[in-house]
Parts: sequence; structure tokens; C-alpha cells
Amino acid sequence: MAVYTEVSDEDLVSFVAEYDIGDIQSCKGIAEGVENSNYLLQTDRGNFILTLYEKRVQPEDLPFFLGLMEHLAERNFPCPTPIHAPDGVALRELNGKPAAMISFLSGMWPKRINSDHCREVGVAAAKMHLAADGFGLSRKNGLDRKAWQQLFDQTKDRADEIDTGLASKIESELTYLDENWPADLPGGIIHADLFPDNVFFHGNDLSGIIDFYFACNGSFAYEIAICLNAWCFEDDGSFNITKAHNLVKGYNSARMLEEAEITALPLLARGSALRFLLTRLYDLLNHPPGALVNPKDPLEYLQKLRFHQQADDQSAYGLAGEM
Amino acid sequence: MAVYTEVSDEDLVSFVAEYDIGDIQSCKGIAEGVENSNYLLQTDRGNFILTLYEKRVQPEDLPFFLGLMEHLAERNFPCPTPIHAPDGVALRELNGKPAAMISFLSGMWPKRINSDHCREVGVAAAKMHLAADGFGLSRKNGLDRKAWQQLFDQTKDRADEIDTGLASKIESELTYLDENWPADLPGGIIHADLFPDNVFFHGNDLSGIIDFYFACNGSFAYEIAICLNAWCFEDDGSFNITKAHNLVKGYNSARMLEEAEITALPLLARGSALRFLLTRLYDLLNHPPGALVNPKDPLEYLQKLRFHQQADDQSAYGLAGEM
Repeated sequence: MAVYTEVSDEDLVSFVAEYDIGDIQSCKGIAEGVENSNYLLQTDRGNFILTLYEKRVQPEDLPFFLGLMEHLAERNFPCPTPIHAPDGVALRELNGKPAAMISFLSGMWPKRINSDHCREVGVAAAKMHLAADGFGLSRKNGLDRKAWQQLFDQTKDRADEIDTGLASKIESELTYLDENWPADLPGGIIHADLFPDNVFFHGNDLSGIIDFYFACNGSFAYEIAICLNAWCFEDDGSFNITKAHNLVKGYNSARMLEEAEITALPLLARGSALRFLLTRLYDLLNHPPGALVNPKDPLEYLQKLRFHQQADDQSAYGLAGEM
Repeated sequence: MAVYTEVSDEDLVSFVAEYDIGDIQSCKGIAEGVENSNYLLQTDRGNFILTLYEKRVQPEDLPFFLGLMEHLAERNFPCPTPIHAPDGVALRELNGKPAAMISFLSGMWPKRINSDHCREVGVAAAKMHLAADGFGLSRKNGLDRKAWQQLFDQTKDRADEIDTGLASKIESELTYLDENWPADLPGGIIHADLFPDNVFFHGNDLSGIIDFYFACNGSFAYEIAICLNAWCFEDDGSFNITKAHNLVKGYNSARMLEEAEITALPLLARGSALRFLLTRLYDLLNHPPGALVNPKDPLEYLQKLRFHQQADDQSAYGLAGEM
């Protein structure tokens, strides 16, 4: 949650006037999205999200992110879509920062996850993978294995401040993943950050997915691996195989996972756990005092990594048999 | 700006169901109000603000705050008003904390203040003072001179960490104010925190006042003194007498300040500057690492205090003559 940029009224009014969306009635900074400043803007015609892109988003990536949302929304995938001003331009500038007006998506992200939510997010992930097909742009995953190595190089000297032995655990995992990482899995565009706070529901019905600012090209099964980490562990650290089973079953209902993808899941889950362990570790070690965002606990992902390391195969995930 | 409490969906749905306000469509934590957790709740019938009262608000004060808003709104003063559930109760509980559903006030607080805003806030302050007349409850100012002394006692040993000599400056100001504080000024209920972020506008027209959680009994002129500090200094620390003049002229248009009140303004402005200096100093020295709220700079108010100390009389505020 973060609102970094304060926008003056005059600047806001002239910015909004560039769009054909009515007159401003209110504009409130909202606690949503860790990377950018988000405002819920209300006009006499409806609700909009105004996003100012802060420094962690590369401006050259914005046409990919905005174009992807538009591509998906045109194919009836439920996600916010950038509003074009009458001059046709969606990406503009406000307060010296790239900014976009985005349609408002109703619903709430689930604070307490149940297995219905998991099935729904599985279905939506598969539909998104299919709907993204044909999108003309591509984007390399900025947090791929090469980036993991760089994050490790930047954190290894201080990692043991957080947990004794952490640096050597990460190093050996990096080596293991380098030697065993699966190649040639089916892929396309993935969201790459499908955490519960990016998935909105009305009750148990998914209303849409937001925050495509990590989206990139990658293997579809890696998306599922991220979801297994983000949706299927309980607060006490235990893995809920009913949730995992529902998630994969939901995914299969829209796009059937191939055998190679299922087989790769435990390894991809290790990689995904390491990715979030490393970014959280980096953020914690580089957390500016007084920052508005509380750093997340990297050790949550060390615990998840340990679960995946001990899993013999997909049966540990409740994914044997009926796949 | 703060959102401290995460509310689960189930709890939220059952809480909202106690009111007759329709079905939830979205609920977003908003960056508004430093003391409480605020959510902008949208239902199929409109917008509402859901407030959870955090530890800095005393639960026994809530009937005063909520009752005051209701009293003012009934007298057509533009402010949010608590929504009563069908059982008649406005103050309820959510997540183990006192909580209320409040009507939504449109408009935005001004990030760049002009002298029209100052006139408008003056008018509104006077109208509020008049409209509050007849409200049946009273509340002592929790940040009166006795509280200033207590805040000083809790900060004096470390005040010089922030600015060399600060402790002795505060101490001599406390003594001066004790010896010179004006008695018997006209009074009633005041807002006591009329900062720009609590006053909403559509353009230059005031749409309403929010956040009555410091409201108390006090002298009306003390409210003006707070406003002089909060609205009439420029970013470079200079005092804008046009703004001050407009503020008082606006106030006078609805309730004429008496001569004793005008004469007392420089001293009340010193007191009000000291009050915010002390609370900010306390907050800065007691700022928990990782807190979501950035502490405000106490020295901004030391500079303002210095201006008031050097003012000979009300003419330094542009308030001579036409009063």
C-alpha cells in the first residue's frame, strides 16, 4: 500500500480535462499497489483509477502493460483497461511522472482465502493465458533466474543478519535450480504476480484481476507455481492440498496442463519461492527508514521453499491421479 | 494517511448487512485521517466512509464526535454524518474496534492553498461555531495548556536532539503563555484541527469539513488562531497577510469577531503553534520504526511560533482597520 505522489488540484483538474470522463467529484489516495501511486477518482460519470508510475516501473515497459490490459479486456477478460483521451493517447504525464487513467474494477481482494477462491483464480489464470495469445508485444521477465543471481550478489553479505545460514541456503538453491530448471515448457504472457491482493471477488466469484506491472513472457506453469505459493499455504505455514488441487483443477478446466508442466511444478514452485524470498530480502535490507511501505517477511518464503524442497513429486501437492 | 486494520471480507459483509445501505461493490483503504483506519465503501446505493477507531481515539469520546457531526448536519452544516442502522445505533464494532459508517462527502482538500480557500474556511468556521450551538454534549480540549506541559515533560530530555536549544525555547514559551493566556473569550464547540486536509472543496467552493476527532469546547478565536497557522503560511515560511485577512473577513461575514478576540489572536496563535510543535515533537521522538505514517516536522511550527512571538499586535496579521 502506498501513495507516494501528492497531486495538486489544478494539475489534477487539467489532467482529467484531457479525458472525456466528466467532472471530478472526489479523488482519494488508495492503499493499493505497492509500486505505484493510485487514486480512486470519482466523476459525475463514474469511478476511475488514476495511476502514477513511480520509479520501480520502467517507463519503456508501460506500453506493454497498458497494451496488455487493453488486449485482455477486448477479449472479455475481466481486468481494468486504460482510458484513452480523445487524442487517442492512454499514457500521459502528471507531476512529471508517467500516468494513466484506468477503468474501475469492482470487487474486493480476499483477506481470508478459501478453496473456492483458489479454483476461481486457477480458471482465471488459464483464461488469461489464452486471452493474451496474439498480443503483439513481448517483455522479458525482469525477475528471471539471472536477476535472482544479481539479487543474491547484492544481498549475500548481509543475508545472515536476517537468518543465520540464509546466504548459503540461497546459494545452493540457485545452483540446484540452474542445473535442473526445465526448458521448453508451454508459455506465453503471464501475470507473474497473481497474489490475492491482485485478484478481486464478489463473495466467492472472481470479478477480475488487476496490477499487470510484472507481466512478462514466461512458462504458463510458472504462473501456477507462483499461485501455489501465494494461495495455498495457511498462516501457520502448512500447505493446503485441497486448495492446490482446486487451483490446478480450475486451471485445467480452461486450459489443460500438459504432463511436462505438472511434473515441473515442484521445481517451478522452488524457483518462485526463491524469487519472492530474494526480492523480499533485498527490500528488507534496503528499506528506507520512514518509508510508507512495511517490508514483507522474506523468511515466509524460506519456509515455503523448504516445503517444496522436501516434496518428492506432484503428489505432495495433491496433484496425482486425476490430472 | 493510514490504514492500520485489515478487515476480512466476511466480517465486512456482516457488518455492512447491519445497515440498510445496499450490497458492497468495493471497499478500499484510503489515505485519509492520521488517527483512524478509513475505507471508501461503495454499495449499489452509493458511497460511504467506514471508519475504524484506532487507539488514539478514546471510545468514551465517540458519542460526542458522532453526535456533533449529526447535530451539525441536521443544521445544514456541510459535514459527514453517521449512518444509523435500522436498530438506531450508529456506533458499532468491527474487528474488535469501535466503528461507524459515515456518509460520503464529495470534494477534495486543497494541496495548493489560495486566498479564496482561506476566505471560505473562515466562513465555514464561523457557521460551524454557530451551528454547534445547542449541542447537548461537551468535551474538554485534550490538548489544552495542561496537556502542553505534560507533552513537554515527556519530550524535554530529548528535544535538543531535534534542534539545539529547543527545550529551553519551549519552556520559556510555556511560562509566557501561562502568564498571559486570555480568559473569558467567547467560546463554544470548535473543530480544533481545521487543517487543509480536513476541508474539502470543489474548485474554490468549500464542499464540507471532515474529521471532527479533535473537536472540543474552547474559545472561537483559538480556532482562528489554528487556521492562521495552518492556512496562511507559505512553503518558504513567510506569512501571507492577504490570506489571513481573507480568513478573518470570511469569518466575520458569518460571526463578527469581538475586539477582545482580535486582540487575543497573536497570543492564541503562539499557543496554537506551540500545541502543534509539541505534538509533532512527541510523535517524532516516539515514532515506531516501520510505522505507516511519516512524522511531521515539528520545526515548521517552531518557525511559525517565532513569527507570532515577533508580531507586535494584530496589524502584523493584516488585521488592522476594517475589523
